[in-house]
Amino acid sequence: MNTTTIPQSEFEERIKRFQANIRKENLDACLVHATESDMAHVRYLSEYWPTFETGAVFVPAEGEPVLLVGPESDLYASHRSFFKNIEKLIEYRESAEPDAPGMSFITYKDLIAKYVPQGIKKLGIVGWAITSLPVYMALKEQLPGVELVKADMTLWPLRFVKSDNELACMRKAFEISELAVEAILNEIKPGMTEFQVIGIAQREIYKHGGEYEGHSLYCFCGESTNNAISRPTHNKIVENEVIQLNIGARVSGYSSSVGLPFSIGPLPERKRRLVEFGLEAHKKTIELLRAGKPAGTVVNEYEAWVKEQGFGQYLLYGPCHSIGMMEVERPWMESTSEYLLEENMTFQVDTFFYDKDFGLRWENGAIVKEGGAELMSSKFMKYTEI
Amino acid sequence: MNTTTIPQSEFEERIKRFQANIRKENLDACLVHATESDMAHVRYLSEYWPTFETGAVFVPAEGEPVLLVGPESDLYASHRSFFKNIEKLIEYRESAEPDAPGMSFITYKDLIAKYVPQGIKKLGIVGWAITSLPVYMALKEQLPGVELVKADMTLWPLRFVKSDNELACMRKAFEISELAVEAILNEIKPGMTEFQVIGIAQREIYKHGGEYEGHSLYCFCGESTNNAISRPTHNKIVENEVIQLNIGARVSGYSSSVGLPFSIGPLPERKRRLVEFGLEAHKKTIELLRAGKPAGTVVNEYEAWVKEQGFGQYLLYGPCHSIGMMEVERPWMESTSEYLLEENMTFQVDTFFYDKDFGLRWENGAIVKEGGAELMSSKFMKYTEI
Repeated sequence: MNTTTIPQSEFEERIKRFQANIRKENLDACLVHATESDMAHVRYLSEYWPTFETGAVFVPAEGEPVLLVGPESDLYASHRSFFKNIEKLIEYRESAEPDAPGMSFITYKDLIAKYVPQGIKKLGIVGWAITSLPVYMALKEQLPGVELVKADMTLWPLRFVKSDNELACMRKAFEISELAVEAILNEIKPGMTEFQVIGIAQREIYKHGGEYEGHSLYCFCGESTNNAISRPTHNKIVENEVIQLNIGARVSGYSSSVGLPFSIGPLPERKRRLVEFGLEAHKKTIELLRAGKPAGTVVNEYEAWVKEQGFGQYLLYGPCHSIGMMEVERPWMESTSEYLLEENMTFQVDTFFYDKDFGLRWENGAIVKEGGAELMSSKFMKYTEI
Repeated sequence: MNTTTIPQSEFEERIKRFQANIRKENLDACLVHATESDMAHVRYLSEYWPTFETGAVFVPAEGEPVLLVGPESDLYASHRSFFKNIEKLIEYRESAEPDAPGMSFITYKDLIAKYVPQGIKKLGIVGWAITSLPVYMALKEQLPGVELVKADMTLWPLRFVKSDNELACMRKAFEISELAVEAILNEIKPGMTEFQVIGIAQREIYKHGGEYEGHSLYCFCGESTNNAISRPTHNKIVENEVIQLNIGARVSGYSSSVGLPFSIGPLPERKRRLVEFGLEAHKKTIELLRAGKPAGTVVNEYEAWVKEQGFGQYLLYGPCHSIGMMEVERPWMESTSEYLLEENMTFQVDTFFYDKDFGLRWENGAIVKEGGAELMSSKFMKYTEI
């Protein structure tokens, strides 16, 4: 069995802290949402990962939480989660919207009557950005008079500073990502497709104990390396071009990503210069991270430095975002960010530069500490020419 | 380069047919949504697959469609899609909700002003079940007086009957899935984890030209085989137990899945009997499929037959669902289904039985034809004991 995991007591502690926040905001309960590709909040509270269907956790200000699943997931949920209360709601069915004739479901109205007999007046929605219209319309119809409020910040801050168990999962995920990158660098050949390179990473992730990719994996060669977001294609790996990898394993829900540009054979001077400057900028960012520093300051110092060096025109956006259960999570590090960095916040140092015909991204994970950053990956923080 | 794909002319034809439906419903335009894990409608119209961020296609009743993407996806979208019109909207940002300072976005209001200068009164929402609250709230605020209606059925029926190009993608996807299953049966050993088995499938999918998994892959051993939906774990493969595989490759957006229960060493008699009955029921379902038949009749005949054979207590749900870009899509085949099966509709024959301590699922893809069903996979439609 897996030893890098989150114990049940930590889940229970999370729910207690979440309930304290719910009460502090004068909410009677929160409804927390997840989808297959954006499962983090629900998994954080329950270990449940909705698949095919969507799902939610209902957490009253006091008392026991309830896991809400779609028509076909109740046995899965009972095997996966320690929650004693699991209910089926039609709103969490697949997007192909089966009728599910003969199955029985609870409504939001009856859910409240069963678990909060005194009733509710104010319901917080967590995961507002991924809450679907069927859920919203059912809440409006079944709970007339109940005020629905966006309440993401009752839960998000619990996830900002990672526990020792969370850090262990993340370190393991980064370790597996490095093994996957290593295998790619050993096996990649001109003529392979980008997809085939991804296949090497997938093989290694599962071989070494990963449970899934931590994010949609990147291998791009040539022009599409200038896409900040993209997906691999059947395009072939060629020599003397930037090849971009962003490879992330997932361990017990926790994501990782190791990103590097490299080449087979030398790069043209112009491209090599930007790749090498990117690495300098990446290291510069890492130097700027330490507990107590205002997040916006890191961004402003970073951007000023890049501009000073004459590379401002290749910048798209800020140098870090949090990483945890999602490869990209709150808090972002943007010029508008006002919070202070805290010990054991975890950031993905994400250094992306792009030009009209190519781009590059260096990515490594860092844990904020008093004196600076502790890296979760650093094996490929060098320019590699195969 | 990939030869199994959808040509641009077919995308253009889809948009024309969709616009005819939009006009028939007296809508002025439709807004079609997608997420990373539920990308089908948007990809069907544009070839674009939103990743990290979400996305949409705006299609006016007359005139050119517009691809709507988040802050970081415009270059990706322009490389991926043939759409000439691509716009960035803050509503399609990641769920971690970056501020994206310094970036510029179009609003829904300005989008309408730019692409439908005469204005709109009635806007159809397609992908209602995956439309998020930020999108809905922005529409309500920016387009006061515009009626928003659920309009899924303006687009869905276009996807019911598959074209020759679509069938070619699906056949290729099923072929790759069979290669992946074959590799697993050759390599699986007691003591491997369920995740490691999935790694074999992932390796083969990308090696043979798949672009991704067609759905979240299943390998379960033991009790969790009774989960209709589940995810693999670190549990070890053991002998004399039901091992369940559902392995699906994705090719040019089209999904597939090959599902079989098998064992290493013999199964106890009770389990083997249900596995073998499941296979009979699977074949029985395939016999019932033919163009012209009412879908609900297939379900009723299937269920009556299963009950007659004395296995009714092991049934969870109906025997088929459509497959295409999503592994589960409309139309479902349920007792309430009133439509007639049509030539070149594609169904996943999904035969699931479960008991308190195990379950099993036979899955193969079928194309409906006049005289019966043409199978897209059949290599593993037999009970295998390794």
